[in-house]
Parts: sequence; C-alpha cells; structure tokens
Amino acid sequence: MATILDGKKTSNIIKEEIKNRVNRLIQDGKRPPHLAAVLVGEDGASLIYVSNKVISCEQVGFKSSLIRLPYETGEKELLSTIKKLNDNKEIDGFIIQLPLPKHMDETKILLKINSNKDVDGFHPENFGRMALNMETFIPATPFGITEILERYNIDLSGKHAVVIGRSNIVGRPISMLLSRKAKVGNATVTVIHSRTKNIESFTRTADIVISALGVPGFLKGNMVKNGVIVVDVGITRVKDSSRLKGYIIKGDVDFDSVSKKASYITPVPGGVGPMTIASLLLNTFKAYEKNRSSK
Amino acid sequence: MATILDGKKTSNIIKEEIKNRVNRLIQDGKRPPHLAAVLVGEDGASLIYVSNKVISCEQVGFKSSLIRLPYETGEKELLSTIKKLNDNKEIDGFIIQLPLPKHMDETKILLKINSNKDVDGFHPENFGRMALNMETFIPATPFGITEILERYNIDLSGKHAVVIGRSNIVGRPISMLLSRKAKVGNATVTVIHSRTKNIESFTRTADIVISALGVPGFLKGNMVKNGVIVVDVGITRVKDSSRLKGYIIKGDVDFDSVSKKASYITPVPGGVGPMTIASLLLNTFKAYEKNRSSK
Repeated sequence: MATILDGKKTSNIIKEEIKNRVNRLIQDGKRPPHLAAVLVGEDGASLIYVSNKVISCEQVGFKSSLIRLPYETGEKELLSTIKKLNDNKEIDGFIIQLPLPKHMDETKILLKINSNKDVDGFHPENFGRMALNMETFIPATPFGITEILERYNIDLSGKHAVVIGRSNIVGRPISMLLSRKAKVGNATVTVIHSRTKNIESFTRTADIVISALGVPGFLKGNMVKNGVIVVDVGITRVKDSSRLKGYIIKGDVDFDSVSKKASYITPVPGGVGPMTIASLLLNTFKAYEKNRSSK
Repeated sequence: MATILDGKKTSNIIKEEIKNRVNRLIQDGKRPPHLAAVLVGEDGASLIYVSNKVISCEQVGFKSSLIRLPYETGEKELLSTIKKLNDNKEIDGFIIQLPLPKHMDETKILLKINSNKDVDGFHPENFGRMALNMETFIPATPFGITEILERYNIDLSGKHAVVIGRSNIVGRPISMLLSRKAKVGNATVTVIHSRTKNIESFTRTADIVISALGVPGFLKGNMVKNGVIVVDVGITRVKDSSRLKGYIIKGDVDFDSVSKKASYITPVPGGVGPMTIASLLLNTFKAYEKNRSSK
C-alpha cells in the first residue's frame, strides 16, 4: 500500500515552525509579517480560498488584511489599490486573488505588483528568476509540491517525472523546478498536455506523476506503473446533493485504483491544497525578511 | 535521405528581409537600428562570435558598435558602461558577450541591462515573459531553432520532442518554447540531462531531438528512430592540425549515421549557428521598433 503524503499534517508542521519564528520576532520587539489579499467580486470558490489564507495568517501570528472590491471595479481603481499596497511599508507581501473579472487584463494587473512583494510569484521577473534558478518567490502550488516531497525525503535525481498540464500556475513552474539542479530536482521531466498523443505511454513509464489537469478521476491505476509516486494537484468541485455544501472536491487521480500501485500518493483533499497555503506563508516570511534587510 | 535544414541559406533569407526593412526606414528618413556589443577580455572564440555579429549588422544596414574592455576590467567599470548603453537613446539593443571573466558575477551584471534593450533575452524579466508566453526578446539560439523549424513548415503539434541539456541559454528556453501553445509549439517535451538514466530510451522514441550538450558526435544513428527530426546545437572546437585554424567545429550529432535515418537535420556548421545571428538581428529590430514606439 502507498504511503500517504499527508499535506494537512505537513502543512501544520510548517505552520508551527513559522509560528515559532514569529514568536521570536515578537520577543525581539519586532512587528510580525503582514500579508494582504485583494479579492475582486463575489466568486464563491475565490472567497473560500482567500478566507483560508487569512485564517492561516492568524494561526501563525501574521497580520493580514483582506481588501474586497466589487465585481464592477475598474482596472484603474484596482491599479491604484495595488500602488497603495506597493508603497505601504507595513505590508510585506500581497496577492491578487485570481481569476479577476473578465473586463480586466490579468497580465497587465500582475505586472504592476512590486516584485519584492509578489508572494504569489506570478510577476515575470520572479517567474524568470525561478526559470534561471535564482533566488525568488516560487508560486505557492509548485513550491508546496517540492516542499512535501522534500519533507518525505523523496529523491528525484534521475527519476522520470511526467507533469500533466502546462499552466503558468502549476504545470510549467513545477516542470522547471523538478528538472533543475537542486535538492528536490535533477529529474528527467516530460510535460504532457491536451495535444499530447498517447498520454498513457508517458504515464505508464513515469517514476513520478504530477497531475494538474482538472479532470476528476482522470489518472487510473492501469495508467501507472508499480511503485509510482503520485502528486494530485486537481481540485474540481463535483456536484453532490448528499453533501451540505452541495458539492465535493475531486482530484485528478482515481485514488482507489492508483493508490494500490503507488509507493507515495497525495490525497485530495488534504494533499497539495494545504501545502499551497503553507507555501504562501513561507513566501510572506521571506518577503518580510527581504524587505527589512534591504532597509 | 534527410532534408537538410539549411541555416546558412535561411539566415541569408532573413537577413535579406531585414535589409529591405532597413532600406525602407532610410527611405523614410529614419535612422537604422543600432546594436552595441561589449566584449571583455581576449577570448578567441568570443572575439569570433562578436565579430560575426558586427559583420552581420553591416550586411543588413544596421549600425553597430563594439566596445572592448581589457580582461582586468572591474565590475564597477563594466556596470558604468552598461549604464551608458542603457541611457544612450541612439542604441536600441546591446549584448554583453559571455562568458565574462571569472572575477565578475554574470547574473549581477545581466540584471543591470535595461530589459527593453536586452536583445539576448537573458534578463529574468524577459526570460519570465517567455516562460509565461508573453511578448518578449527570446534568446537568440532557441529563437533561431523555432525560426528554422517554422520556415521549413515543420509541424510539432503533438510530437514528442526530446531536448538534451538544461542550460539557461538553450535547453531550458527551447523546452519551454516547444511546449507552449504557439505555431511552432504544442509538442510534448522531455528535457534530459547529465542525471538522466537510460538516455537512449528517450532519444529512441523521440519525434524530434534538440541536442545542446556540447559533446562532439554524442548522438549516433542507433539512438534515434527512422524519420526523426534532428537539431544540432553543439559547437565544440576539436583540435585538427590539418586545418589552418588548428581546429574544426563539431556538433553533438554524428551526422553520417543520424542523417541516414532522419527526415530533417541541421548540419554543423551551417545549421543553428547562422540562425542564432539572424535571430539577434530580428531582436535588435524589435528593440528598435519598441523603443521608438514608446516615445
């Protein structure tokens, strides 16, 4: 049976570590790190994500600010909010919760975030620094994946990693991270996507599969080899009237059949999700240290 | 027999196109694009590369400036040269020929180049823009590869591309370019490198192999399948006392055995090399247009 890569437990350990670091700051008479989050509109899933981030900040002793703007907010107004956050010395890092309303140009908006406060790591300069293996903010989801693999002492060197999906948020950055010269790295990485022919010929030979496709139950036991390591990044809401919320969260991986063959596997929920939030907190702490040391 | 992907011929066509564009500028009473190159030290290979770039500028009607600094130049002095180039409105783009002397921090230096004049595309912001599929300067060698594939109408969609090498200059950027949603793109891409186990299991199943390893004659006919497309980025000097120069340039690919199985193949010399210079000229033209339109 597969060992569960327990994201909930691991993220709690990381949060405990951060909390201790914050306590030491307070004892030294310093202020705690401060994360701000901007949410535009009323999207239910986005509201839950942002709320979880705010709650996590409180858990570790960070200060947090949630700035809510109505759906109708103009680009100009959002840019002025960003400018204030860039200039505010009491705020170490901030995120603009995506997706933004359709009348806004996400790329244009993200470019305006001060790269030293860009704890989501989506600014091209930070993304480029990651690609070039320089010090930077690594986007939270891929950062969370490398962190959980590292904490379970999984050695990827020389292993064949197959990444399903080429998004800017997960597939592309995790493929770069796994192939670079680094502790959690040195893997041979293949990125597969919607245009890939014969997907199974890749997944079946993979030593590790990272699935970030967003198709519930896509990866089945007969698509992987024995001993495979599986990281499930999918979080799709599937209608389920038997639940109070009316839906359940499903990963890309058919857990029952895949876990029988895997050596390690992340569950959904309780796998990559909590690691993503822990990584955002780590990035915020890094921003705090970076901005204070540059003064 | 394989079709030769003729980089010399293709780059000459591109140069001719650029020359016509420059002529139209001159007819319109405008100044031509201007590329500057900085060479620190006396490295023979670097001097040849830079000279070829300067000569190519002349061929297409660009203005060019070569700034030579002694090997002993300090970082501070080089940074002051860069500042002057950044500020000089008559210079559209410039390159710092690599490698720099060992007493200099290349990363630190490259970060100081104005990203709008960074025609080599090595600045993290430009590299990140490439990774995020945004408008940018694409580094000349990977740009040259996509350009020759495009001009030979080679469709990569759904094909399995194996990139040998993970350098910042070639392997990493070409792997991103080939997998993105673009005309020359949509390939399934695997990056293999020094830590990869069983390299041949990847090269033998590849529809296209891009080799940027720097090991002369590494890729042999028995390592590829029939019909493979092969792009050879290797340019290693191998001693040869029968030559006037005392060396010959060798690619990564054992041309004789591989060309018998390939459908398309780039030769060395006359393949990727000339395409790299043509791409630098294209980037310089883009910088010219970009900087003039922003005034």
